[in-house]
Amino acid sequence: MEKIRPRILSGFMELLPPDQIRFNAFLDRLARVYSLYGFTPLDTPLIEASEILLAKGGGETEKQIYRFSKGDSDLSLRFDLTVPLARYVAEHANDLAFPFRRYQIGKVYRGERAQRGRFREFYQADIDIIGDGKLDIMNDAEIPAIIYDVFTSLGLRDFVIRINNRKILNGFFGIMGQSELSSEIMRTVDKLEKIGAEKVSALLSELGLDERTAGDIIRFISTPSENLFGVLESYAGKNETFDAGLAELKAVCSGVAALGVPKTNFAVDLTIARGLDYYTGTVYETTLVRHPEIGSVCSGGRYDNLAEHYTDRHLPGVGISIGLSRLFFVLSDQNMLNPDFPASPADVLIAPMTENSLYPAEIAAFMRASGIKTQLYSENRKPKAKISYADRLGIPFVIFIGDDEIENGTVTLKDLSTGGQLTVRKEDAAKIVSEKIREKTKNLPIRE
Amino acid sequence: MEKIRPRILSGFMELLPPDQIRFNAFLDRLARVYSLYGFTPLDTPLIEASEILLAKGGGETEKQIYRFSKGDSDLSLRFDLTVPLARYVAEHANDLAFPFRRYQIGKVYRGERAQRGRFREFYQADIDIIGDGKLDIMNDAEIPAIIYDVFTSLGLRDFVIRINNRKILNGFFGIMGQSELSSEIMRTVDKLEKIGAEKVSALLSELGLDERTAGDIIRFISTPSENLFGVLESYAGKNETFDAGLAELKAVCSGVAALGVPKTNFAVDLTIARGLDYYTGTVYETTLVRHPEIGSVCSGGRYDNLAEHYTDRHLPGVGISIGLSRLFFVLSDQNMLNPDFPASPADVLIAPMTENSLYPAEIAAFMRASGIKTQLYSENRKPKAKISYADRLGIPFVIFIGDDEIENGTVTLKDLSTGGQLTVRKEDAAKIVSEKIREKTKNLPIRE
Repeated sequence: MEKIRPRILSGFMELLPPDQIRFNAFLDRLARVYSLYGFTPLDTPLIEASEILLAKGGGETEKQIYRFSKGDSDLSLRFDLTVPLARYVAEHANDLAFPFRRYQIGKVYRGERAQRGRFREFYQADIDIIGDGKLDIMNDAEIPAIIYDVFTSLGLRDFVIRINNRKILNGFFGIMGQSELSSEIMRTVDKLEKIGAEKVSALLSELGLDERTAGDIIRFISTPSENLFGVLESYAGKNETFDAGLAELKAVCSGVAALGVPKTNFAVDLTIARGLDYYTGTVYETTLVRHPEIGSVCSGGRYDNLAEHYTDRHLPGVGISIGLSRLFFVLSDQNMLNPDFPASPADVLIAPMTENSLYPAEIAAFMRASGIKTQLYSENRKPKAKISYADRLGIPFVIFIGDDEIENGTVTLKDLSTGGQLTVRKEDAAKIVSEKIREKTKNLPIRE
Repeated sequence: MEKIRPRILSGFMELLPPDQIRFNAFLDRLARVYSLYGFTPLDTPLIEASEILLAKGGGETEKQIYRFSKGDSDLSLRFDLTVPLARYVAEHANDLAFPFRRYQIGKVYRGERAQRGRFREFYQADIDIIGDGKLDIMNDAEIPAIIYDVFTSLGLRDFVIRINNRKILNGFFGIMGQSELSSEIMRTVDKLEKIGAEKVSALLSELGLDERTAGDIIRFISTPSENLFGVLESYAGKNETFDAGLAELKAVCSGVAALGVPKTNFAVDLTIARGLDYYTGTVYETTLVRHPEIGSVCSGGRYDNLAEHYTDRHLPGVGISIGLSRLFFVLSDQNMLNPDFPASPADVLIAPMTENSLYPAEIAAFMRASGIKTQLYSENRKPKAKISYADRLGIPFVIFIGDDEIENGTVTLKDLSTGGQLTVRKEDAAKIVSEKIREKTKNLPIRE
């Protein structure tokens, strides 16, 4: 038979078992933290009508989307989780209670130019809180608290969730007499970290700002954190938008602290603008302190109206998204995945050394009932081959069962990390394995 | 702005939050049981090259597949999890240890005619054990044990995993002198349960069998379970294939019992043939005793060679698949989802009754740190509205925090199921909530 070369498409991520187990640990921990904050899981179809997904239309999205026909239907694969959320909330609004808090972790599709660390199929992990008509600012304070819990549950420590409020920037540009250019200035100053003050200044000049105003703006957004609120207060009372933004930012900062986020993992940063006009208030970016080159690993913000393309209902929201496939790739690339995190498919391998396969099966059933991940290895191979199989899979224990063990109702437990082995009752074997596994599972997926 | 009517495509399943939480409980329990048996999770791309997915080609598959172009690439959405497994194992064979045990739970796509309870996007949950060259029969015994644990962990009790071995059928047809017609006879007798003995007999006549042979075959496969092995033994020694099948079936039966599956949930049934020639030995079907009309909810078997289209390596395997979306739909339809299974997004709603939002935030952080799913409700609404919000979401507890609570460092905990409330320290509130939740989570997702 002629063979077809087995391969996945370029730009698609596929993991070998140990990395898949690590990646799934990311998924599990995210879901657990999101649930602790009262977010409900959603799972929307990967395929939607193109008309729905492209309602907003325009730009890169249309070029990158996977779009195709089936019968008479014009279909597309979702390219983010926000548009499906908007459609879902508009469609099911009468069946939902607001504020509606949902998380969704799922694959999205973008036919981008293939490049290292960029994927055409990748996981996003989104949380959003949607209000009906209005939404209290304390919700904006919860988002960084969730992100803090998510990242620390993965093992990250050295990260900063940076926040800002676009009303402060817009208000300040207003105070500078530049209200009409707000959007353009916003997009320009957003590049400060990437291209530096000089180039931003030049770009601001191109927009028509005089040198002094450009300088004031750059100086303002570069305000160091030490006296930041002092500086902000000095502009209070001059512009309503500015004042509203300042009040919100203060509320968010004290809320974040009350929710238990340490000062070291959280900072106000006026340079965070986010390019998109979609955001209208609080904005977030998260950076790994020792890896600024990675850029923001988790971004989002407050928006005024989620689903305007599908409903007249006014649905403000706040949310944040983690590009999970990219984060995993980058952490792996930076050698930050913890080698001590258990990534084997089983805790113990049962290796029968006799024709009798029933007693080994009973031992396997007992171990599983004790919550121990157990593989029954029934192939007729030499003991050495069985040990090397366990070794290769990283299974920490092997239980050998020969005629002696069957006669005495015992098992012989070998700890592959020490090479030591002892013959004990099955209950004792289960206890030894459980304790070691409990110890090992204290290791977090990421090592910093 | 003109609105686009928000809707999903016909034939696609989307759940409201409480059902999504129940469905996710299915997913979690499946993954947990599969892991206990030493299966490693896989996650392959939803899109593959059409050439890969259609390597086997032919039939319904090609008609139903979602196929499209992107740039120069001819792409398709996967229509099952078996073909991607074959591709994965062939592609990564050198990085895997055999036997290779994997589970995969994921969406697959088939553009079938839309009908009630049939979906175009649906979840499959597959487990397979792949050997390199050969694979011991004890692996065939583990599959029913896993399925038993999966279903009981969901709350199902009244089900029977029916098994057979195609070698026994093929061998018996050989003994009857009908070896050349084996495949056709197999496909015919597979319909016995559906169309009855008379029609099967007529179909066998059409194949050219005389009345007596047809009668013998129907009588044989209808052998009642009481004396089944006695009847099988009476044919021993006449046909090698038959003898091999009988030895395998015996090994599987004693293995399944040793692995702890009760006799009531497991039966040999010679009428189980499975239509596909793909299967070569053990075959499985699972039926709900009180709902035979649903048909098999979990089927599979032993196959000789997984990946012949992609590699010369000989990879026998055994596996089984659950059509999860359909199962969930059917159980819901039969009113078998447990209303007592907790399906609310949170265990407690924190409702501040004061301007101070910081103390409530601290209480929320404390509850979350205690493992309690906690929603902070910060909207400025009347107490009654807050209670009805909790009620609507099925959140069992509300914590009210007013100025008194702040002054005294307490919380007022209201149990919505009883209406009772008491003012206590946060530690005591956490204890009360945790105990109640622990009690509630003993309820399983399915009620039979």
